[in-house]
Parts: sequence; C-alpha cells; structure tokens
Amino acid sequence: MTKDELISEIKSKRSFLCIGLDTDIEKIPVHLLKSDDPVFEFNRQIIDATHHLCIAYKPNLAFYESLGIKGWQSLSRTIEYLRNNHPEIFTIADAKRGDIGNTSLQYAKAFLDDTNGFGFDAITVAPYMGSDSVKPFLQYSGKWAIILALTSNKGAEDFQFQVLENNAKLFEQVLRTTASWGSSDNTMFVVGATKAPILAEIRKTVPDHFLLVPGIGAQGGSLAEVVHYGLNRDIGLIINASRSVIYAADNEDFADEARKAAEEIQQEMKTFIDKM
Amino acid sequence: MTKDELISEIKSKRSFLCIGLDTDIEKIPVHLLKSDDPVFEFNRQIIDATHHLCIAYKPNLAFYESLGIKGWQSLSRTIEYLRNNHPEIFTIADAKRGDIGNTSLQYAKAFLDDTNGFGFDAITVAPYMGSDSVKPFLQYSGKWAIILALTSNKGAEDFQFQVLENNAKLFEQVLRTTASWGSSDNTMFVVGATKAPILAEIRKTVPDHFLLVPGIGAQGGSLAEVVHYGLNRDIGLIINASRSVIYAADNEDFADEARKAAEEIQQEMKTFIDKM
Repeated sequence: MTKDELISEIKSKRSFLCIGLDTDIEKIPVHLLKSDDPVFEFNRQIIDATHHLCIAYKPNLAFYESLGIKGWQSLSRTIEYLRNNHPEIFTIADAKRGDIGNTSLQYAKAFLDDTNGFGFDAITVAPYMGSDSVKPFLQYSGKWAIILALTSNKGAEDFQFQVLENNAKLFEQVLRTTASWGSSDNTMFVVGATKAPILAEIRKTVPDHFLLVPGIGAQGGSLAEVVHYGLNRDIGLIINASRSVIYAADNEDFADEARKAAEEIQQEMKTFIDKM
Repeated sequence: MTKDELISEIKSKRSFLCIGLDTDIEKIPVHLLKSDDPVFEFNRQIIDATHHLCIAYKPNLAFYESLGIKGWQSLSRTIEYLRNNHPEIFTIADAKRGDIGNTSLQYAKAFLDDTNGFGFDAITVAPYMGSDSVKPFLQYSGKWAIILALTSNKGAEDFQFQVLENNAKLFEQVLRTTASWGSSDNTMFVVGATKAPILAEIRKTVPDHFLLVPGIGAQGGSLAEVVHYGLNRDIGLIINASRSVIYAADNEDFADEARKAAEEIQQEMKTFIDKM
C-alpha cells in the first residue's frame, strides 16, 4: 500500500486506529475453544466487528509462534481473510525481526512477499544490527519497514535513552540514521505513546514519516497527548490498541464489546481529523 | 543444559563447533527436492554426518519462516530428531527475538519450553528494548538467552560502535548491563569473529560468560584469532560455521563433504583444547 493510499483510507474512515491482534489462546472467550481454529475464529469475529473503524491490523507474531504449527496456520488464515475480504486494510506483521543481510532477506520474503510469503504490507524491524539488517525490508515496492525507535516499555530506558558523544540519545540517532536508508514512502517508526511529549522532538527529526504508536490503553498512553505532539499534515500517525480493544469482554459478546471499544477511540480520532 | 554439562561435552568431543542450519531450499542439492520434506532431509543427513564433531546446532529461523507452515514443520522435525537421537547436543534457536515483557514471554514459551514449545536449549535475543524484553528468556531452568552484543555484519558499525557519554561503546554497555540481569549460567553473548581483536576487551568485561561467535568461514573470521583472544578457563567459546560446512558440496556427497569441512575445524579446535 502506498503512502497516498494509506492517507486516503485514514481520511475516508476518519480513523488512524490499528488494532493489535495479540491473540492469546488463554485469554479468548472459552466458547471459542470448541471451534477448529479458535485463534482464527476470534480474529475473524474481531475483524468483522471492527474493520470499518480501523485502518490497520497488527498480529503480534509471538502469540502465534507460541502455538507452533497451529499458530502459524491461524496467522496464515487471518492474513488471507484480510486480503480477500478487506484489501483496503493495512496489515502489519509485528515481528521485530533483523539479522545479517542474507538472513533479513529471508525474513522480508516470509512476511512481505505477496507470492511466496504472507504478503503483509509492513513489518516491524529491530535496528541494533544496522543498515544491512534493515535494507532488505525496503526492497519490496509498496511495502514498509517499521523501525523500532522509542518503545513503550520500561526497558526502553536501558539503551534507547543512552546519550551518545554527539549529545543525541540512541533512539534519536536511530531515527536520523535509519531515516536516510529509505524514505517516508517505505519507512515508519515505532514510538511509544507512554512518552508522548518526546514526540514533539521526534517530529522535528522525521517531519514526514508515519509513526506507529503503541501503548494506548492497557499500557497507559493518552490519545489526545499523542495527537497533540505527533500529528503532521498527512496525519502521520497510526495508533495501536491491542488488549483494551480485543479483550474488552471475555464472553459471547466479545466482538460487539470490541467494536464499542474501537468505536470510542475512532470517535475521538474523528474529532481530531475534522479539526484539521 | 547446564554450563557444566556443556563444558563436559566440549571436553569430551574436543570441539566447540556449532553448525548453523541456515537451510535454504534454493541451495540444497537438487536430488533432495523429491523427498517429502527436503529441508528436514537435508538437516537429518547433515546431523548424521557431523554430530560427533560439533557440540551444537543452530537453526536460523528466517530460512524456515520463509517457507511458511512447511518450514515450521521442517524445523519442528529437526529439533525433535535432535532431541530423540542426540540429547547431548546443545540446540540454539537463532531467532533474534525481543519485545515488551508479555510478548517476550510468549517467544520464550515458543522456543524454550520443553512441553509447549520447541524445547531449544537457547535462543538469540536482541537487546534494544531493554530488561523486560530479555528477562523472560532467563526464567527457564537450564535454558539460555544469547544476547546480541557485537555482530559480524557491516551494519554493526551503525549503532553498536556508537560511543556513549561514559566513553563506552554501545556494545560494551550492552554487555555490562545485560550481564547483570542473569549470570554466566543462563546468559551468553553473540560476538562476531570478524572483529576478533576486540574479543580481548570483551573478555575483561565478561570473563566467565560463554560467547557465541559467528562469522567463521563464509564471513571471513579466523578461528585461531578468536581462540587467541576469546578463550577462557572453561573454553567459553562456541564457534559457529554455517555455509562453509553445510554447503561444502551441492551434490549427492554433500553430507560427507560437510563432515570433512566440520572435521577440519574440529581438528583445529582439538589442538587448542589439548594445549590447555
């Protein structure tokens, strides 16, 4: 999906919400466990109930890998369902991959390739191993690398906030350096909502890039703050909510409750878009 | 596998060789393609031919993920084959995972758990997201997190060599900080062989930890140099060779040629162990 297509979807749906499919077999409603593929069935019902309110879905790979081959099948069915029924949805593999060049090339194929892989629109990428670990993800036309810059967890303080000789913090250096490897047409950055005021500084460094912002909801970040500091003229934000939406209820009404939770966020987003 | 058991294996086999199972369906001998599971069949024959010469195997996850569900099945069969036939072998999932705590927990389950996961002995872990992204991998008794410190690729220069305010390079800070999260009984570090002289400095920082050293062979690192700078009283080194061993030949003799390539490395390792 191109940047223009993404912006157009955001404007049309008046939403920049991404729903994280962190589907945990131990947290989904028990009545689903009798279906052939409970994880896919959960995802399908969440998608059916919320696709008109969000512009992206982001399966978190760990939850699928922890189920082995069955999990891989559930993921495969989920992405196929999205591609067949909602091709306008932006799909993100939250995989945080990155390795030496010939290996990253295999990961890029696995997640981004439409013919030989899952065909996601984007994948999250870890920057520690540098240029040759990231560039293979930038080679697929219309596909995106979403690079970890500043994450929403407590551990972000251990290394991302380390100050370098040039006075930049490590995450700032990551933003500056990795931004030069691609463009705002194939690169986004993960910036945690729990550190919203820092978004103003980040916007100076990467004014044109989309930012994927996790940490709204269960992790405590505020939507209004993120919008205040992070919005650019193209919106430039994809805000993710996972647990607060998909686990809004754990009974037979889970999908309807997820819809209500997503709608609440979308309605707030709508007010910001309408003011632009 | 405990540290003592690993050291005992190394001394008994007079080898600290790890063979990287970067099994690429496009590079394996064509006659294998007619088997039901060519990737597993390749791995099985490599294992049968080399298990007496090495102490570890390291499947690189990217090569399996790029084949989708089939790849996941080949990986599953490979680890099962190792556990059933060669339980003395140390198994490393080269996955370079790392995410917020509740997600890393799922990755740890996927790769380290003996009952609900693959049951690998160890997994490679990316440090960028800090403590809560790494600690879930340290919770399994007898299992290991192998943290990326200094990698063997060119991109290592982009961030790992950045100098911090305290004059430490980022990879040194990663070594010091992450070493305090566990101990030399559950933590190892990836240190690329292509930067062998730096091993002397690294040994001062982590004198007791095992180091997993990639980059021998296809990537150009020298075994003698790595041993010179990196050996400690427990050996303390696991040296990985992937392509130079498993792709020593691409015909029907590939397993025998892999054995010869592994034996050559093991014989050189033996001379170093015998001198200790």
